[in-house]
Amino acid sequence: MKALKNLFLNELADMYDSEHRITKALPKLIEAATCEKLRHALRSHLEETEGQASHIDEVFAAFDEKPRAKKCPAMVGILEEGDRIVTENKRSPAINSAIIAAAQKIEHYEIASYGTLRAWAELLGNEEAALLLEEILDQEKEADHALNELAVAKNKETLEEVAIGAGA
Amino acid sequence: MKALKNLFLNELADMYDSEHRITKALPKLIEAATCEKLRHALRSHLEETEGQASHIDEVFAAFDEKPRAKKCPAMVGILEEGDRIVTENKRSPAINSAIIAAAQKIEHYEIASYGTLRAWAELLGNEEAALLLEEILDQEKEADHALNELAVAKNKETLEEVAIGAGA
Repeated sequence: MKALKNLFLNELADMYDSEHRITKALPKLIEAATCEKLRHALRSHLEETEGQASHIDEVFAAFDEKPRAKKCPAMVGILEEGDRIVTENKRSPAINSAIIAAAQKIEHYEIASYGTLRAWAELLGNEEAALLLEEILDQEKEADHALNELAVAKNKETLEEVAIGAGA
Repeated sequence: MKALKNLFLNELADMYDSEHRITKALPKLIEAATCEKLRHALRSHLEETEGQASHIDEVFAAFDEKPRAKKCPAMVGILEEGDRIVTENKRSPAINSAIIAAAQKIEHYEIASYGTLRAWAELLGNEEAALLLEEILDQEKEADHALNELAVAKNKETLEEVAIGAGA
């Protein structure tokens, strides 16, 4: 189990780095959004993300380890792509759709990672860590769900505001 | 809707690039895996991935467009991280867990992207493209599910083979 514990701690350090990168990147997405519902969804998730970094501190503590970060090349790439999609669509009526797409890629990376970490925490028999990770995982799934609701809004007004854009 | 169509075609070109990168990366993960069930799951998904590239050709055709690729920095980062996790754990009994984690990150990026593309194809009123993208999306979800089953195997034998490793 020592090998799995090392793997777990490395992955946790990867997510610690990711969360800090996301905290810096989300304000740029919020600023670029022109739809108030989307700005609101992203703002709430930014607050959650700040809380998640301290949750990760607690997961390290549950393993008697000090928090550490390990550069996460995947999140670097995902955020680079998000930056590009926003820049390319800055004056486009599809800017909100572009931002939702970028944000859902971030969420799904986190869903995959926290799903793995929670499963490993259980295999390692650390219930406290597993519960903390479950809580973060649920927040990520909820954030993805909220973005999805905006992306495929059945409500015509929201659809026009988000997907087609005010200027279309 | 022209802005959304441009966004759609750019995202599709991004996934065209991604699928080709994944086709090159999966054989390295298969080679590194020591669990036969995992090798089998990855091999099946490699075959599917090859099919998905030609599905994307058909989606371009449904929009009367020629297939094109656009470098996907997110997938570059995700695969770089996968490469690192495999290298770092090459002789570790946790190698299979490491590979599953890397593969699930790939799957989730694809789930987010194809989910977005399918929603946009529907908004753009292109049923043929929406159905093709739905088919790819279902394959990605199924692949993620199969990896999950291996990662948290309830069966003791599989658990030992995958998560703890033969040498543990």
